[in-house]
Amino acid sequence: MAASTSSIRSSLLSCPKLSDPRLSGSVSGHRAVLSIRRRRLDLPFLASPSISLRSVPNRSRISASAVPVMEGTPQKTDSRVSTIVEVDLGNRSYPIYIGSGLLDEPDLLQRHVHGKRVLVVTNTTIAPLYLDKVIKALTHGNSNISVESVILPDGEAYKDMETLMKVFDKAIESRMDRRCTFVALGGGVIGDMCGFAAAAFLRGVNFIQIPTTLMAQVDSSVGGKTGINHPLGKNLIGAFYQPQSVLIDTDTLNTLPDRELASGIAEVVKYGLIRDADFFEWQEKNMQALIGRDPSALAYAIKRSCENKAEVVALDEKESGLRATLNLGHTFGHAIETGFGYGQWLHGEAVAAGMVMAVDMSRRLGWIDDSIVERALNILQQAKLPTSPPEIMTVEKFKTAMAVDKKVADGLLRLILLKGPLGNCVFTGDYDRKALDDTLHAFCKS
Amino acid sequence: MAASTSSIRSSLLSCPKLSDPRLSGSVSGHRAVLSIRRRRLDLPFLASPSISLRSVPNRSRISASAVPVMEGTPQKTDSRVSTIVEVDLGNRSYPIYIGSGLLDEPDLLQRHVHGKRVLVVTNTTIAPLYLDKVIKALTHGNSNISVESVILPDGEAYKDMETLMKVFDKAIESRMDRRCTFVALGGGVIGDMCGFAAAAFLRGVNFIQIPTTLMAQVDSSVGGKTGINHPLGKNLIGAFYQPQSVLIDTDTLNTLPDRELASGIAEVVKYGLIRDADFFEWQEKNMQALIGRDPSALAYAIKRSCENKAEVVALDEKESGLRATLNLGHTFGHAIETGFGYGQWLHGEAVAAGMVMAVDMSRRLGWIDDSIVERALNILQQAKLPTSPPEIMTVEKFKTAMAVDKKVADGLLRLILLKGPLGNCVFTGDYDRKALDDTLHAFCKS
Repeated sequence: MAASTSSIRSSLLSCPKLSDPRLSGSVSGHRAVLSIRRRRLDLPFLASPSISLRSVPNRSRISASAVPVMEGTPQKTDSRVSTIVEVDLGNRSYPIYIGSGLLDEPDLLQRHVHGKRVLVVTNTTIAPLYLDKVIKALTHGNSNISVESVILPDGEAYKDMETLMKVFDKAIESRMDRRCTFVALGGGVIGDMCGFAAAAFLRGVNFIQIPTTLMAQVDSSVGGKTGINHPLGKNLIGAFYQPQSVLIDTDTLNTLPDRELASGIAEVVKYGLIRDADFFEWQEKNMQALIGRDPSALAYAIKRSCENKAEVVALDEKESGLRATLNLGHTFGHAIETGFGYGQWLHGEAVAAGMVMAVDMSRRLGWIDDSIVERALNILQQAKLPTSPPEIMTVEKFKTAMAVDKKVADGLLRLILLKGPLGNCVFTGDYDRKALDDTLHAFCKS
Repeated sequence: MAASTSSIRSSLLSCPKLSDPRLSGSVSGHRAVLSIRRRRLDLPFLASPSISLRSVPNRSRISASAVPVMEGTPQKTDSRVSTIVEVDLGNRSYPIYIGSGLLDEPDLLQRHVHGKRVLVVTNTTIAPLYLDKVIKALTHGNSNISVESVILPDGEAYKDMETLMKVFDKAIESRMDRRCTFVALGGGVIGDMCGFAAAAFLRGVNFIQIPTTLMAQVDSSVGGKTGINHPLGKNLIGAFYQPQSVLIDTDTLNTLPDRELASGIAEVVKYGLIRDADFFEWQEKNMQALIGRDPSALAYAIKRSCENKAEVVALDEKESGLRATLNLGHTFGHAIETGFGYGQWLHGEAVAAGMVMAVDMSRRLGWIDDSIVERALNILQQAKLPTSPPEIMTVEKFKTAMAVDKKVADGLLRLILLKGPLGNCVFTGDYDRKALDDTLHAFCKS
């Protein structure tokens, strides 16, 4: 039952809920669609076709076993891995393993642990649920390894320097050295903090992501963005730092609260809006399955999201242009998170409201049809996500927070906006300021 | 008077105090010596000769004007630059400009400023001396640029997270964005902190090093090691992050206290001991000129040190092996700095005592002749540097601090030790523990 590249489409087609028309097409056909779409992006480096064309063939290597979820005795090699998505970054490439029961597969973790010391970074919510399981997976049949853990308070409100220092304290006290491995076990906050700690500890040690929320599985654990918040803005301090691997055990979603699940779906919707119309259409047909936690639908949404993310990251690791498009709705969303206070709304909730604002602004600019506005609003409402900012947000609060956004360059705020048919966007500072003002006033009472 | 590659040797030979026998040899002869020497290093990746041989031709491009120091009206292009040493790191390569009066050359700074916003990071000692000059150089004929500055307290004791946060605070308050440039104006502490701040701010912005101490000019400003201390150990939190350029105005040494000057000389001596016997011999003949602040002798020592550092960094940026050899004496030295309290001794003072200890241990292992021990001791005494640790250091204190050294791997402390003729060293964990114990007991009262 070893992973096999040739069996990918049969694996995906065996999933009963999937009604994606693109699945019957060939992989090369799919890629042709993607490159046409990319050429529409308003990004300077894409003027050179050689960049996108050269990257296409090796971009996303995907392998899969014939059956998504295995029952019975665990096999030695990848037996429960339904999909491996490769993030193609030269000598920093790494696999994303996606499947049910992967935390019961010690080899999947151990093959990426270098050195003899491991520090698991997790939080007070996740530790009682999965820490023992992860320690068991790390040490099973491997007495040579010593595992320490640090359990942080849970929530975006603790994604700060003070909490980060607890990771360094623990790492130093437990004599972690350059050959150690940090393991991030938790959601996006844990992944971002553990990743930045790994990037900065002894100027860089290995790390592995084990995302346990849908948000982290479809977005934040992939692509190497790490960091912490500053009181004046989100993720202002951090590093681009890639993990050795990402291990997504879809079973961890069983313990995820509904609100957290919906938060992750916001990012899934985002991929559809910015670059994958077929995926968006699949979501329109399958949103009830997703919020109903249908395992096959979730596994497919995770895989397709990781593929989209991996493709973008492989083309633009350090966010010189293309990668910024993954932040649709995030500038408005970060402003909500900062203005409302970290942790009041979940990240995906703020992003959902932010996406509605970005879509509204795109319409005001005349860049998209009304139908896209309606479809975006409708799918987010189906996912039970907010579609407008909280009342506390004023135009002034938005403007203050947006002024320190990372996408400001030489004083100009660049935004991701939809433009053209569904699945197309631009990252640009070249827009009518009035449209932004009108959107802010439309969504804020004062 | 533009820089010219062909004139390098005449420029150097015009310096009256220099009595380096190697200066009359050819550059290719010099490189042949270096590669023979490298092959003696006990480093696993050097078993593959292709790595060192392939890297040699492009390793260090050096250009220079015919006269080291120009008088009179500043010229438009590099007029006072006596040497440019190139750090060859592919698309992250950068120049080190070395010369007198370079802060009066706006173009040298401005050509490496990207974006319109600059944050100068400096300290309370350096700000009154050079901040205005640097701001003038940044803004001269360039009204488009806005410059902010943050002035930190001076000293290694402030190389901590709390002080680093002041840089982030200032950067965010003054709306620095992704296209801004940080400028480190000061010694090693400022360079390390500003560099790490630049690495982490918005996940990485441009930065320029303007080192004002000999220590920073010959060592810490070159090669991209940045970071801060943790109460339990030096430089435990940081990043490898390369600057856009390094601007060494040798005139800044005029305001440097004698003790700081000597501290920098410790690193100059280090290059001789680990990889450049000819440079060591030159130093033996020119140490009085160096501590007497002869400008030509200092300029030559800086240039030669930067060349050595640039070569090593180009071969091993992330310190997988070779680069660690630049830390001769630093494991003992860091233990002194940590055990004695940061800021009691200057870094180079601790390194000097640490080098004597490393040399002593190398002799106990039978790896070097007694004559090298004597010559090392003698040259450091001539430079008025300490040659033994402070009395407060016990064997226990050394062992505690050395256990968290970054060069520990899987629990094994690796050290840089001399082995063979002068100018040869090894980086190894394969040594008799008794020799380390004997050295510690020989240098500590308890």
